[in-house]
Amino acid sequence: MSGGAQREFFTVSTVADALAGFRPSGRTPVEIVGLREAAGRIPAGPVPAVAALPGFPRSTVDGYAVRAQDTYGASEGLPSYFDVAGSVRMGEAPADRVGPGTAVYIPTGGVLPTGADAVVMIEYTQEAMEGTVEVVRPVAPGEGIVRADEDVAPGQALARSGRPLRAQDVGLLAAAGITRVPVLARPRVGILSTGDEVVPPETEHLGVGQVRDATSVALAALVREAGGEPVFHGIVADDRDALREALSAALADSDVVVISAGSSVGARDETATVVAELGSIWCHGLALRPGKPTMLADSGGVPLIGLPGNPRSALVVFRLVGMPIIRRAGGWTETPPEPTVAARLTRNLPSAAGRLDVAQVALRDGEAEPLFGSSSLLSILITADGYVMVPEEATGLAAGTEVEVILYS
Amino acid sequence: MSGGAQREFFTVSTVADALAGFRPSGRTPVEIVGLREAAGRIPAGPVPAVAALPGFPRSTVDGYAVRAQDTYGASEGLPSYFDVAGSVRMGEAPADRVGPGTAVYIPTGGVLPTGADAVVMIEYTQEAMEGTVEVVRPVAPGEGIVRADEDVAPGQALARSGRPLRAQDVGLLAAAGITRVPVLARPRVGILSTGDEVVPPETEHLGVGQVRDATSVALAALVREAGGEPVFHGIVADDRDALREALSAALADSDVVVISAGSSVGARDETATVVAELGSIWCHGLALRPGKPTMLADSGGVPLIGLPGNPRSALVVFRLVGMPIIRRAGGWTETPPEPTVAARLTRNLPSAAGRLDVAQVALRDGEAEPLFGSSSLLSILITADGYVMVPEEATGLAAGTEVEVILYS
Repeated sequence: MSGGAQREFFTVSTVADALAGFRPSGRTPVEIVGLREAAGRIPAGPVPAVAALPGFPRSTVDGYAVRAQDTYGASEGLPSYFDVAGSVRMGEAPADRVGPGTAVYIPTGGVLPTGADAVVMIEYTQEAMEGTVEVVRPVAPGEGIVRADEDVAPGQALARSGRPLRAQDVGLLAAAGITRVPVLARPRVGILSTGDEVVPPETEHLGVGQVRDATSVALAALVREAGGEPVFHGIVADDRDALREALSAALADSDVVVISAGSSVGARDETATVVAELGSIWCHGLALRPGKPTMLADSGGVPLIGLPGNPRSALVVFRLVGMPIIRRAGGWTETPPEPTVAARLTRNLPSAAGRLDVAQVALRDGEAEPLFGSSSLLSILITADGYVMVPEEATGLAAGTEVEVILYS
Repeated sequence: MSGGAQREFFTVSTVADALAGFRPSGRTPVEIVGLREAAGRIPAGPVPAVAALPGFPRSTVDGYAVRAQDTYGASEGLPSYFDVAGSVRMGEAPADRVGPGTAVYIPTGGVLPTGADAVVMIEYTQEAMEGTVEVVRPVAPGEGIVRADEDVAPGQALARSGRPLRAQDVGLLAAAGITRVPVLARPRVGILSTGDEVVPPETEHLGVGQVRDATSVALAALVREAGGEPVFHGIVADDRDALREALSAALADSDVVVISAGSSVGARDETATVVAELGSIWCHGLALRPGKPTMLADSGGVPLIGLPGNPRSALVVFRLVGMPIIRRAGGWTETPPEPTVAARLTRNLPSAAGRLDVAQVALRDGEAEPLFGSSSLLSILITADGYVMVPEEATGLAAGTEVEVILYS
């Protein structure tokens, strides 16, 4: 062939097959973080409670602590009368105890006095005279209180591993006094770009034919979204030795490496050759559009993801394939929920059977408008509110079909 | 009343009314961030492109740049023949031009040579002999290329204000060479807890009746999720002077202030009194369960959010009311999409008409199991996968009803 043209050969896998079987061994180490930095991190294991919570029988209402049996039969017409022995102060042990026919005022959250087994809400009481209260409704034992171990029993798991800690999870850890949390380290994700035409975003004036690296910074944002820490390894020329050196350095320093190959077949071939030297290729070619020339390899337990050269395809593939791999390396075993919305297609979406198609759409009044255009146009991703997946078994979707749009957030 | 018991008086608003009308004037200032820190931030305004992108007519395929008219009529049986004048190198201006009957090899992403108006994919060509190529399919003018301004025209907006920059948005900014981005500062959100019984999470041994502050750290996580920067202002005793001093300090230093009032009516009354002194109360009491004793006030343009004392109610209210207020202060005008899933209720969900009920649910095999228990139990939020809202107009939902579960992520 003239002019350096080459042809690629793929062994095409479906996205699901590629992800299901690709299991590099690397996992990130355990590190300790302060509770204020723990939200969004993956616990290294279940965190057991040392003590019961709340730790004391606690009132859940404002009212009077009593012996429930003393209220039986009480009504508006025939209230039960109690001598008020005192009142519970917040955050302190009760000074008074409750005996037959006595009541102690207790605010919400107060410690139940000894002898009491229920709290009557203040709404169902009435001050009869100084030091005496009328109760106009009966309470059952346990009413108006939580037990000392009702929120958490000793030994109970306070947080679940396999998914990031949520706001309420760090709240419960705080309640239990756990202020240093063992979590899995964020995967360090090395990001490399290749391409003789690619220059850093900082380049003010472009030479003819040059383009700024749009992919690296966008990938870094997605890496953070997947719980990873992006590490930039720069732009490498389409030269086998330079590529080998840069990729080796990235692999030595990373838990996952992502390389966006050059856009031409020749540049992709260079990348594929070097990847094959440094690791074992798990799949080369996905039944995905855009994203066919994707490569997955395992280099000594470090997953290596080769993305298509054009930024738009690279971002589509990275959401579908790269982010799950990063989550896995970081200890996520659950799949995070994604925001979606149902909408009707305004136009036909063509697709080939056996291939997963990802179509960008804009939403307008409950309708999904497919955005067509060259896969080299990044602006289409900017206009898109989300995307629609046309599954492998479909040969396109007709206008009017109700589809699930996965929303960018 | 004996023992310090008091009764609260509310002017109850619906959540929607409370949010729609509450418009404190404060907005955060503009700051400049580097592109690598720009994802998730709100642009201070639309960012216009200075130059066209890609900036040159660019090949979208590997193939041969030609004059389209020279291919008209070409077929497998009767190919058009071209003299190969040279090849385009990536990132460089083409050395050769295309004339009648000549072709130049061009890789994907290369600069279209002068004289050419289309690129024939390599798949539709065949090397006839050294220096000659056969084209077996015709191309139309414009095929296989993107125009110099097809991705972005000069002056076009590269990013939308009113919502956070997404991965693709920072990618396009990088492509346009914009590496310093004017964004709205993250709202500083002051967080205070009150309650004589509340002690810091670091407290190793609790006295009888004491509880650790679970709310502050959980709120901080939600503040970050809403794009804010949490600032802890500690735990204040249920004392009017102490509260006034702490709240004034927080207001002076914050764009939004959140105070979780004590759990008892007495403590809440103290807070309400001080809030009324320092700002004008917009609403006191929401038709929401849990969360009735919520308060919204405006202190010189700074929104002040008074949350219920128990952590579980506080977190429910903060998601529904606090996070939208923080987003608004930070310049979000769009509502972020939330992940949801449809599921059938396993049990009846009782509710009162005129009140929005938020029920925590666990998901099992497509069914939503409501989690009942005292609103003081934080553990219920830990078990929950999401929540169901029973709207104001409903008087409960029957078992078997299909509901939308808003998922915690």
